[in-house]
Amino acid sequence: MGQQIIVIGAGSWGTALAMVLADNGHEVRLWGHNKDLISEINQYHTNSRYLPDIKLPEEIIGYHDLEAALEGIHTVVLAVPTKAIREVLQKVTGYTDKPLTIVHVSKGIEPDSLKRISEIIEEEMPKELLKDVVVLSGPSHAEEVSLRHPTTVTSSSKNITAAEHVQDLFINKYFRVYTNPDIVGVEIGGALKNIIALCAGITDGLGYGDNAKAALITRGLAEIARLGSVMGANPLTFSGLTGVGDLIVTCTSVHSRNWRAGNLLGKGQSLEEVLENMGMVVEGVRTTKAAYQLAHKMNVSMPITFALYDVLFNDKSPKEAVDSLMGRLPTHEMEDLSNILGESRN
Amino acid sequence: MGQQIIVIGAGSWGTALAMVLADNGHEVRLWGHNKDLISEINQYHTNSRYLPDIKLPEEIIGYHDLEAALEGIHTVVLAVPTKAIREVLQKVTGYTDKPLTIVHVSKGIEPDSLKRISEIIEEEMPKELLKDVVVLSGPSHAEEVSLRHPTTVTSSSKNITAAEHVQDLFINKYFRVYTNPDIVGVEIGGALKNIIALCAGITDGLGYGDNAKAALITRGLAEIARLGSVMGANPLTFSGLTGVGDLIVTCTSVHSRNWRAGNLLGKGQSLEEVLENMGMVVEGVRTTKAAYQLAHKMNVSMPITFALYDVLFNDKSPKEAVDSLMGRLPTHEMEDLSNILGESRN
Repeated sequence: MGQQIIVIGAGSWGTALAMVLADNGHEVRLWGHNKDLISEINQYHTNSRYLPDIKLPEEIIGYHDLEAALEGIHTVVLAVPTKAIREVLQKVTGYTDKPLTIVHVSKGIEPDSLKRISEIIEEEMPKELLKDVVVLSGPSHAEEVSLRHPTTVTSSSKNITAAEHVQDLFINKYFRVYTNPDIVGVEIGGALKNIIALCAGITDGLGYGDNAKAALITRGLAEIARLGSVMGANPLTFSGLTGVGDLIVTCTSVHSRNWRAGNLLGKGQSLEEVLENMGMVVEGVRTTKAAYQLAHKMNVSMPITFALYDVLFNDKSPKEAVDSLMGRLPTHEMEDLSNILGESRN
Repeated sequence: MGQQIIVIGAGSWGTALAMVLADNGHEVRLWGHNKDLISEINQYHTNSRYLPDIKLPEEIIGYHDLEAALEGIHTVVLAVPTKAIREVLQKVTGYTDKPLTIVHVSKGIEPDSLKRISEIIEEEMPKELLKDVVVLSGPSHAEEVSLRHPTTVTSSSKNITAAEHVQDLFINKYFRVYTNPDIVGVEIGGALKNIIALCAGITDGLGYGDNAKAALITRGLAEIARLGSVMGANPLTFSGLTGVGDLIVTCTSVHSRNWRAGNLLGKGQSLEEVLENMGMVVEGVRTTKAAYQLAHKMNVSMPITFALYDVLFNDKSPKEAVDSLMGRLPTHEMEDLSNILGESRN
């Protein structure tokens, strides 16, 4: 039987997820801060800015009034950039008096606090208003989901029953949902792959080809797993959909905005120019800062993250950064790989 | 100081590797069975059939007479399709009386015998004529190496000193060579990724998009690691250049002939039509048969390999095969992943 669910954030991913929920018979309220966009959704059943040429199910009702949209709601899907999460949750808290299950679909880590999204949610929501936190993550470009192309994602929570509840809400013939109890690994993999995608875009922008990109992605996966393991993740999670799966799609697909941003950097644009030209949030830039800080704090070797940090924030040339990365690989491959599972390091 | 080295096989990969060796100051003899091609190499310093628009170093000398080409040689680079290896080695054995180091760069497993390439080499060469067997493998499209784009590969042997010797021969500024003592894992990863690449081509040919392909590659990596671990490989090797690295490049690059063959299958061509249209060896077809036999023998679950086997050899429709793969994933992701490291299976 259908449930009432709110999706907060009417960007491409929030809208695509609202479509999945509507296809599954739920009553979906899609909240967005842009009044014109909400009017368009309700009047024409389109979201032409974020999902051009897609007809939305008429069961999706757009809301601009968050208080009204939250009435009677038990499950919140939070689809906003990581930067906006604290502010949005403060508003949600003000408009609700029942415990909520928060499903977040954002991929990032907060600089300075170094918190994962689920930790930010636990910090911002009063305990009595927070039933469970679930993350939905995996290789899933919104454009393809909106076309109902086959897609697989992972639902993860400290409370496996909550993860299974979210699995039940979303699963259907074209949208396959699996569960994984390792929320640390799922969140770290989703966030850090954007760093590698920026770098993959840079190597492509420099014209270095697929061999170089494959080496970079391979080393990037090792680097992500190394940090994640130190933070308490299960190393196997990085071999799954939210690890290598999401990494591949983000580094090789034309849909990836982090790859596109890196590509422009590799072609010689400055970070300011790139962010202006994109007109969308590029999560990888903030995440690079956070991962750089985490690596220092945890004393983990992350050469790709460090090289990108220098490109983004210290005016290092992309070519110099990539060339020095290629030069400084270890001689014995296993020295590098064995670090993933916490074995001895040279 | 330069050495005398023979590269047997003047296809795209053999020729690109000859270029690397020539760049490193070695005296390179490139043997091929096609007289016209060898004349072209010696007269015009090009290999227009396999590496169009590339100027070869003049230090590469083409040979059509294998006996003459083997004179004074200690190191043989074997760059022929897996199907031709036994026949070529029988000829090599007839023309030599000193122990040789054989460096093979082929990616396949022999159907019926179920042997890896290094095992075939050990079987065909008399013990007193075989010094060492080394495999050179990794994410390395010949076209990019011939343009001297940055590339990384792995050199592997039971004898790590031999692997390091081959590393020394090939390593330079654009061609980075690492060593890994796990020859079983390196050979299995290189061979089986062609199966997944054929399937990735099929999903692309069916128009399924990047989300589906990422899911397939992720599950394919788990499947390769599962079989490899049972065969004695180090599971970590599948997280390295010859595992996930080569898998990514083969599944996502326009240069990959296995992907291209799968793409044509997905678009509705029969296997016979595809092989005729390709005009190049598609190793993944034979390897699918061998992996299918291995999975049965070793009692390992390999759903992607089995689905492709049915498409290639039992006239199953590609769409039906892919759709049934998407449907039969386990509910809990970790059930699938934990099999990689040999943990309990549901």
